[in-house]
Amino acid sequence: MSKFQPVKGMRDFWPAEMLKRQFVEQIMADVAQKWGFLPTGTPAVESYELLASKGGGGDEIKKEIYYFKDQANRELGLRFDLTVPTARIISSKLDLPLPFKRYATGKVWRYDNPQSGRYRELQQFDLDVFGSKNPLADAEIIAAGCDIFDALGFEDFAVKLNNRKLIQAFVESVGIKDPLDVFRSIDKLDKIGEAGVKKELKEKLKDENKVEKILEFINIKGDGKILEKADKLVDSKLAKEALRELREIIEAVKAFGYEKNVKIDFSLVRGLEYYTGPVFEVGVSGSKLSLAGGGRYDNMIKHFGGKDIPAVGIGLGFERIVDAMSDNKMFKLEPPVKLFVVSVSDNVRPEALKICQMFRREGISADFDVAGRNLSAQLKYANSCLMPFVLFVGEKELKEKKFKLKDMVCGEEKIGNLEEIIKELKKS
Amino acid sequence: MSKFQPVKGMRDFWPAEMLKRQFVEQIMADVAQKWGFLPTGTPAVESYELLASKGGGGDEIKKEIYYFKDQANRELGLRFDLTVPTARIISSKLDLPLPFKRYATGKVWRYDNPQSGRYRELQQFDLDVFGSKNPLADAEIIAAGCDIFDALGFEDFAVKLNNRKLIQAFVESVGIKDPLDVFRSIDKLDKIGEAGVKKELKEKLKDENKVEKILEFINIKGDGKILEKADKLVDSKLAKEALRELREIIEAVKAFGYEKNVKIDFSLVRGLEYYTGPVFEVGVSGSKLSLAGGGRYDNMIKHFGGKDIPAVGIGLGFERIVDAMSDNKMFKLEPPVKLFVVSVSDNVRPEALKICQMFRREGISADFDVAGRNLSAQLKYANSCLMPFVLFVGEKELKEKKFKLKDMVCGEEKIGNLEEIIKELKKS
Repeated sequence: MSKFQPVKGMRDFWPAEMLKRQFVEQIMADVAQKWGFLPTGTPAVESYELLASKGGGGDEIKKEIYYFKDQANRELGLRFDLTVPTARIISSKLDLPLPFKRYATGKVWRYDNPQSGRYRELQQFDLDVFGSKNPLADAEIIAAGCDIFDALGFEDFAVKLNNRKLIQAFVESVGIKDPLDVFRSIDKLDKIGEAGVKKELKEKLKDENKVEKILEFINIKGDGKILEKADKLVDSKLAKEALRELREIIEAVKAFGYEKNVKIDFSLVRGLEYYTGPVFEVGVSGSKLSLAGGGRYDNMIKHFGGKDIPAVGIGLGFERIVDAMSDNKMFKLEPPVKLFVVSVSDNVRPEALKICQMFRREGISADFDVAGRNLSAQLKYANSCLMPFVLFVGEKELKEKKFKLKDMVCGEEKIGNLEEIIKELKKS
Repeated sequence: MSKFQPVKGMRDFWPAEMLKRQFVEQIMADVAQKWGFLPTGTPAVESYELLASKGGGGDEIKKEIYYFKDQANRELGLRFDLTVPTARIISSKLDLPLPFKRYATGKVWRYDNPQSGRYRELQQFDLDVFGSKNPLADAEIIAAGCDIFDALGFEDFAVKLNNRKLIQAFVESVGIKDPLDVFRSIDKLDKIGEAGVKKELKEKLKDENKVEKILEFINIKGDGKILEKADKLVDSKLAKEALRELREIIEAVKAFGYEKNVKIDFSLVRGLEYYTGPVFEVGVSGSKLSLAGGGRYDNMIKHFGGKDIPAVGIGLGFERIVDAMSDNKMFKLEPPVKLFVVSVSDNVRPEALKICQMFRREGISADFDVAGRNLSAQLKYANSCLMPFVLFVGEKELKEKKFKLKDMVCGEEKIGNLEEIIKELKKS
């Protein structure tokens, strides 16, 4: 037995799992690049001062992260998201042409209680637009997110969309001073249910009438008409602005072809304190947890000492997406190695190597037995590795320049010269 | 000014740099997969016990890594390489079909003194074969490494190859008990020169004659004849085994087509203590530092409590490779975003969005102004972002279904319908 285990809450990935993760990451990056998002990267380690800053995680964060000091006594921590580090670099760059659209992916670390779907090391994939207050930017982020879910093969993803400003305007209109405190309760809707939220709000507000009004508002339904209904219930400059933004987002999302996937939901507020306007979450049927979420956070760059650069972004829950795709059997991956080249006898091994190398040069992933074993051991190995094709190289084959290719799935055998076999493998 | 900086010795990457890194990583992964190496992944954080274990970094490692305790007082550290974590997972897996060929890439962290080419956070890319003592495995690793340097566009990479067993056999034959201590001095050849090594060995061995013999041996030259020369100078079972291994590696490397790149060099020993046989390093002209290195480490898995699984691997110095390619202007990357779709007036914006989206669906990376600005601001932005093509969408264009495509590099303009423009962009 091995003496060593992975650290609690962290995972090792063997090829079967890694190939899935690469597939997902590749699709996300491909879509992002097609949409004109450019990659950025930041270190895993950040100063604790940044991680715990007001615009970042706040003082509370120490309990939730890996915090440590280096040998020069610097206070450091592992990043808990990709948003805070990105805001740091944006705040430090003065000559950036704006808007700047970027994507980033990488691991983040949380000193969380490990449980199903929660890991202490997890991957994230973020898309952000910096430098545009225009709802076109929010729509671009939402639609790019939709395009990723579409490209991954999700057929029924749904985006919940709201605007914090609207809820804020309504909450203020019924005479409540601290909308953030109300948001914190509403955000628990999925977790503690409406009754739970009601109870909590009653304790906080000590006014049953106000609580009823809030619950009524966040429960407004009515597809095409929902914005009109809200418009009648709250009348302020902030509410008008919020409704205009939502309308413009919906309009642009329509141009992108995703209007059927996006639905206004006034009960969505999202937990993070830094959001300042539109917020959204992506869910898929069969999964209670949201698979992506984001919103507008116009004050973070300024808080970090940068220029007044507005921002909107979406974070894709990479781990949940991989899990959901696995659960729904959505991965249809090709075998990673296509061909195993068998040396029928020891003396042909150098020729078998050359042939193997030729396939690789042709772009066909090919392998041979690096342990130099005999024919039956090679075949046993090719079987245990689930190689889809095996090519036999022996003296007779080399002399006649005709080789046998065996399809290990259906058992079919074909004889041909190397050119024919390359063609056969490329089309299969 | 931003209040926050990156942590000392760690770097942020903007798109220009990230695109280079992605290009390099993609080529490395493509070659690895074609050669039948499968991806594995392990966490950034490992138990300190593993990192400091005898088979791993040893007790000395604490000064060189990011060491910390979590809230449950577990002793942890950031991984300093990918070999030790991989050996951990191999040692824990009992049913792995062997040989197992894997590649891995990821960041590693070293509490190093930051200087040119040395970073506290750096990327690595490793290829390893587990479970084969056969020199075919060493040759496979060396040749796959060569294929990567070839695919990256290096024209004159050179692999130095040696076998520690041979030097060990020679050193023992002149009556020295601790070959590892001699290796440590020889390993400094590049750093302190031959005179420095001589001085150090004299202090260690207190026998000028022995020192001269060692230096003479590691200086043996003579392309085709070098192994014969060594054969005459040292006669032991271990030396015979070492020479046989080297001959078999050279033979297989020849079959892979890389014999001209590989050269025996008896002065190569490599620093790490865990190597047990063949060792190698890859260099390119114009770079003093080696860009890749590796060797056989047959005892690590066993030391970690696993089965007796031999191993050989190569670590590609990702950062040095990117730096060398930048220095030599080897990156010829396409602009990441090909097309900027301009809305001539506000009222056509939804149609411009639809057209932009259509290009993306066609696989052409396209962008538009998410800030919703006027025509001249859009063009100024497209210029500052170095967009290679701009498409103009106005009322007239929409009515006539003919659009103007401007090549922003040569200034040429073309008029055509969307189908023609897609064709034009795909071929350019």
